[in-house]
Amino acid sequence: MHQEPTHEITNQSEDRRKFLKNLSVMGGAAATSAIAMKGLEAKDAAAQSEPGVPAWPWAYAELDPTLTQEKGYLAYSEGGCCYGAFKATVGHLAETYGAPFTNIPVDMMRYGGGGVASWGTLCGALNGSCAAIQLVCNAATATKLINELMAWYCSTELPTYIPAGKDPTITTVSNSPLCHASVSKWCMVAGKGVTSPERKERCGRLTGEVAKKAVELLNAEFKSQFVAEHSPGASVTECMQCHGSTAFNNVLGKMECVSCHEPHSAVENWLKR
Amino acid sequence: MHQEPTHEITNQSEDRRKFLKNLSVMGGAAATSAIAMKGLEAKDAAAQSEPGVPAWPWAYAELDPTLTQEKGYLAYSEGGCCYGAFKATVGHLAETYGAPFTNIPVDMMRYGGGGVASWGTLCGALNGSCAAIQLVCNAATATKLINELMAWYCSTELPTYIPAGKDPTITTVSNSPLCHASVSKWCMVAGKGVTSPERKERCGRLTGEVAKKAVELLNAEFKSQFVAEHSPGASVTECMQCHGSTAFNNVLGKMECVSCHEPHSAVENWLKR
Repeated sequence: MHQEPTHEITNQSEDRRKFLKNLSVMGGAAATSAIAMKGLEAKDAAAQSEPGVPAWPWAYAELDPTLTQEKGYLAYSEGGCCYGAFKATVGHLAETYGAPFTNIPVDMMRYGGGGVASWGTLCGALNGSCAAIQLVCNAATATKLINELMAWYCSTELPTYIPAGKDPTITTVSNSPLCHASVSKWCMVAGKGVTSPERKERCGRLTGEVAKKAVELLNAEFKSQFVAEHSPGASVTECMQCHGSTAFNNVLGKMECVSCHEPHSAVENWLKR
Repeated sequence: MHQEPTHEITNQSEDRRKFLKNLSVMGGAAATSAIAMKGLEAKDAAAQSEPGVPAWPWAYAELDPTLTQEKGYLAYSEGGCCYGAFKATVGHLAETYGAPFTNIPVDMMRYGGGGVASWGTLCGALNGSCAAIQLVCNAATATKLINELMAWYCSTELPTYIPAGKDPTITTVSNSPLCHASVSKWCMVAGKGVTSPERKERCGRLTGEVAKKAVELLNAEFKSQFVAEHSPGASVTECMQCHGSTAFNNVLGKMECVSCHEPHSAVENWLKR
């Protein structure tokens, strides 16, 4: 990925030379593209600052999954699940490798806690991890890794992570990437309140474990060793035969259908008319 | 917010002086805090680059909501709803005001399209807009504005935005912040397929309109004129009387309960035992 600046780049300031040198050290994708550099040149002129932002996607470098998990668990108590997962990945990259990851304030992802300001939508540990994946992967690669992460989350007993000096906790399979479903199911199985310290401990561990999984997927991808092992639930395949892009063509999604819908309820309701 | 560097900051390089000058021009929050500056100094030492990142939250400056809407609509066709909303807000701030907003590649938010890689979870227009709000607001302020944005989205006929030279489209009230519910409802009411150009046009317009609403909320907040006008659905208030932090204490969320659950189905099922 290392490449000398082309003849199209002229009148470089000292700052720009430092920027290009840094890009080269980082193996940044922008270093391969004169067009991307010209784009940045225009932005620099507009902003008159910050030369150290390479073109997206940023070059990934390997992280330690075990350390990622611990960082995610600890960061959960600072700013919630989405912040925790993003700090354990992008913040971890910044701590380990510095620029350009130091450019993004990890606090930006605080909003995702509790499925966005406690609305119970998308699990924040997934939201923060997916943002990290997308930062360092192009669209097609990110979709591939995110599909795996989401499907793994929905079908896996979580959390299995046991922080040092602590006891195991109840694990559940969420069957859903939604905070509301994931948390409520755990609360019912564990017999613990949603506001209990045990539930928060569960979400902290899950934050670490999801971030770890994301890093494992990234490490595998960047060593060309990624193999998909998980798929959306069986009901998705079955229901989307009609509701997907053929026949009814009226449903967008890969979430387990029967988490919210009765099997074939629509057909049954239609037959009752 | 403008403040000269304190005596605690010493041995500044030319780059650092430019950085402080720039922060002063931007009214950056970090310029008021010697502690934040010392934190950045430490990060610079580790990363050996990028001095232009102020402490979070970054200082917001007013955007034109109408222009935001148009930018969101146009950006949707480049990279989807989440990218579109984030580009219309954070990318728009970068285009208008330059640093520090130029530090964040808006492409990082591509993952949120179709409720994250087409899984149908959180509407990407909300996800991208909420990230933008959190970037420029502390935790409490962001929660306040995000609650309003989410509740407005769930209860409002969308999209009403009509791009120049185009006809109006069917509008629907989603009753849900989830892509799956929002898109499927529109498809059924409009009689259009989920893969149709009309559905994509609808999501493009909605992306612009949600980003515009986010900017209207931010503009109001930073002029101390914000007033909350929307609340989660009525079922949330009713159901959470038992399922919230009291009694059952087993549900986390503010999404309309009866979108997925039959009213009182749990009680009825329990009574049938």
